[in-house]
Amino acid sequence: VAPAGRRPGGHDTRADILAAAGQVFTELGYERASIRGIARRAGVDPALVHHYFGDKAQLFVELVHLPRDLAGEFQPPDPGRSRGNAIVRRFLSAWEGPGGHGDPGAKAQFTTLVEAVAASPQTADALREFLLDRVWLRVRESPRQRAQIASLLWGMAWVRYVLVLEPVASADAAQLAAWFGPSIDHIIEAGAAERGPVDTES
Amino acid sequence: VAPAGRRPGGHDTRADILAAAGQVFTELGYERASIRGIARRAGVDPALVHHYFGDKAQLFVELVHLPRDLAGEFQPPDPGRSRGNAIVRRFLSAWEGPGGHGDPGAKAQFTTLVEAVAASPQTADALREFLLDRVWLRVRESPRQRAQIASLLWGMAWVRYVLVLEPVASADAAQLAAWFGPSIDHIIEAGAAERGPVDTES
Repeated sequence: VAPAGRRPGGHDTRADILAAAGQVFTELGYERASIRGIARRAGVDPALVHHYFGDKAQLFVELVHLPRDLAGEFQPPDPGRSRGNAIVRRFLSAWEGPGGHGDPGAKAQFTTLVEAVAASPQTADALREFLLDRVWLRVRESPRQRAQIASLLWGMAWVRYVLVLEPVASADAAQLAAWFGPSIDHIIEAGAAERGPVDTES
Repeated sequence: VAPAGRRPGGHDTRADILAAAGQVFTELGYERASIRGIARRAGVDPALVHHYFGDKAQLFVELVHLPRDLAGEFQPPDPGRSRGNAIVRRFLSAWEGPGGHGDPGAKAQFTTLVEAVAASPQTADALREFLLDRVWLRVRESPRQRAQIASLLWGMAWVRYVLVLEPVASADAAQLAAWFGPSIDHIIEAGAAERGPVDTES
């Protein structure tokens, strides 16, 4: 979990608060975590947490380092790999790091995010705004394609980390990219075909 | 929310408990709901709830009427529609009824399920066992394809009901079937191609 570094000054305190927030959210889950408890863990005044991050939902969305890496997903892929393959690899690496073996930290972080978003419409709003404002402005696919790609990636993570369903739960990043990448390529190609003269949709 | 009707006898009491459980889970969310509170709402002794349903996680999984309808998804499609199209329609109709316009009841039910499964590994275990034992035995696709189809459907529901991301949030069932059905057909076809002499996977 890394700070997004958007606000100037107070860098170390900000990083301390984020580290404390990561621990508290993981230990208690979203609902039971509080700004007060996070401030106590970081050894700062709660007002300072509000100053840097706003409310609990904003702090939480800032904490999950998903969005910054998500933008990277939509850059051109490495040579020899399809765009879908690259998107799956980068999505997984945002959660699990370059290794990509479904480590317990990624599982706890994703599960806490899912719980937080389900428990609070405000958190769902914050996550949606975050995706729309900071990630998807850079994506050239249509809103419908972006929503379909988001569905597939989110569902994959849910099956891997929360439902723990095999073979997706234990596969490594390369396997998952080989399995789910073609579906994303298919979504992208279908959208391209719609805009062109050929209709491939049944 | 309908009773699954697996146990003989006591039909009305069982239905009353399920109706009460549906209200309590929707009002309080999974974590705060209790067997005691559900029994009070139904006007029965808590021991009777345990007798019919076991513990809270088992009651919850019984309550979400997803699984019974999910099995129907994998039956042969209506004439003129692809298998993927039919699977998406039946999945949505399990949550929203035949109309399929993302009604508030479906949203509340799915969101409560997501929160319950994220908050409790026991509930995740119960849901996984339920899917494996009662739904997927009847599905002819491989475990990997089933996991991929589950990812896509679950992600679609998450984007529609929880993240509330357009255009998926407001689309009707026919539109969603036209958008997501081809992805499922693609997963099924890729699996069939792997088992045959031709390799279509990149």
